Amino acid sequence: MNKLPANIGLIGVGLIGGSLAVALRAHGYTGALYAYDCDPAASAKRDAISDFLASPQHVLERCELVVIATPVGACQSVLQAMQSAWSMDKTVSDVGSTKQAVIAAAHAVFGKMPDNIVPAHPIAGNEKSGAAAAHPQLFSQQCVLLTPLSHTNPEAVARVRLLWESVGAYTECIAADQHDYLLARSSHLPHVVAYALIHSLFVEAGDDAHRLRYVAGGLRDFTRIAASDPIMWRDICLSNRDQLLQALDCCQGSLNLLRTAIEQRDGKTLESMFSAARQQRLSLSLPRS
Amino acid sequence: MNKLPANIGLIGVGLIGGSLAVALRAHGYTGALYAYDCDPAASAKRDAISDFLASPQHVLERCELVVIATPVGACQSVLQAMQSAWSMDKTVSDVGSTKQAVIAAAHAVFGKMPDNIVPAHPIAGNEKSGAAAAHPQLFSQQCVLLTPLSHTNPEAVARVRLLWESVGAYTECIAADQHDYLLARSSHLPHVVAYALIHSLFVEAGDDAHRLRYVAGGLRDFTRIAASDPIMWRDICLSNRDQLLQALDCCQGSLNLLRTAIEQRDGKTLESMFSAARQQRLSLSLPRS
Repeated sequence: MNKLPANIGLIGVGLIGGSLAVALRAHGYTGALYAYDCDPAASAKRDAISDFLASPQHVLERCELVVIATPVGACQSVLQAMQSAWSMDKTVSDVGSTKQAVIAAAHAVFGKMPDNIVPAHPIAGNEKSGAAAAHPQLFSQQCVLLTPLSHTNPEAVARVRLLWESVGAYTECIAADQHDYLLARSSHLPHVVAYALIHSLFVEAGDDAHRLRYVAGGLRDFTRIAASDPIMWRDICLSNRDQLLQALDCCQGSLNLLRTAIEQRDGKTLESMFSAARQQRLSLSLPRS
Repeated sequence: MNKLPANIGLIGVGLIGGSLAVALRAHGYTGALYAYDCDPAASAKRDAISDFLASPQHVLERCELVVIATPVGACQSVLQAMQSAWSMDKTVSDVGSTKQAVIAAAHAVFGKMPDNIVPAHPIAGNEKSGAAAAHPQLFSQQCVLLTPLSHTNPEAVARVRLLWESVGAYTECIAADQHDYLLARSSHLPHVVAYALIHSLFVEAGDDAHRLRYVAGGLRDFTRIAASDPIMWRDICLSNRDQLLQALDCCQGSLNLLRTAIEQRDGKTLESMFSAARQQRLSLSLPRS
């Protein structure tokens, strides 16, 4: 852990920020961890933090590496708050689920994307949110996607890589637009669909809702992600709007095809679409299954 | 296990039939288990079966209790095949995911619903299918819904209850139309949506599909049930058509609301619908979570 900076900063100590703090400690990091959180009292992982500071600016002043771990929608105001303490010797990264929005936020604040910002996204986390759910193995063997631009400082990229590898994750670089395309489909779309499904069940069922306790595995899986944090997902939907709308339209198209097949009692189409989807699922190599 | 009949029959030895066979043995059943399967060679659980017979009729002739464990669409032809050996002293049950369709199948064969047929549905099973996935604890602490009619023989109902309680399940009686209403929403709808989602991803992604390996938990959960057996789910969709269409329309309605909110950058609606869905999910008491 020698190569990590002596001072690391965290803006936001929720599930991801809190887990990163305890993961660094669990992996032997003995440097200082400074944090800012709009609700520091809510943090259940205070022991891992050296000190809570009064603002993102104070954190940046003290640290060589700062990770913004807020909902995506707060990223711009955090960068704004940091601006007066900005130095190109320091590295700033984030953990947002959409990457073009973070780059746009930086543009809005700095008029360009500073060379020392390394956008990053740990593909980890679950329907639980907040520091209470944080744990030191959250990133173990998980992928962290980095989306540096061509002019991003390679040393800054290396520093962020090292940070995540230090807590057991592996990193991959990918273009920001590719990231947003893929995540819209692999994560954002399923969340929106899950929310819609649960919403529709309870809107329709009304007082009968309690009877839905007769649930099979199907509903259980869908409902897990429908318990995700509403603010975080509102921000994701808004910040990856165009890709998500495209993916939604495509999904609604497939749903309409299936609906028509069911209505027309077209067993052949149902079987062939189900078989194709099944094959695609089985041929998809998933990190955990 | 004394009160179970000395001879029990199984029509179909896939995931459910095969698991019932090994579960009965694991729970000490020493009577004869006779089975019919259109593909007996495929059965990986042959050891639990006393003998494979040549037809459903042969099984009914030898057994006091017969469980039809085929896809729902095959139920009518199985009853047809059994008709010549029918006796009101025997009890016939099934495991289908839709119950009004089974009652309709009996009507089609017998001109009425015989008093000795007890429609049943073990709320168990997963995306794996076939006897190879069968295991003796599949029904342990799981709910089996029975949908007897008012004129169904209470002794036949008691016999089927005992069968499932003998392998660790608990039973509940419910009206067949209520069953189909609830299962359309808790199981059938999620499966159709999962198939649609996976279908849409791969239709759209084409050669880029392999990049979807960057998956978060969201996609993983949805895709699990999209690996379910296409024939089984084709039959379920067709046999619970009306309820499923109703549930689908409601779900598509919620999806449209969310789509409009995303398109119009309406963060307030997104947050409020997500929050409501989250609350509903959290207040939903699930058997396993």
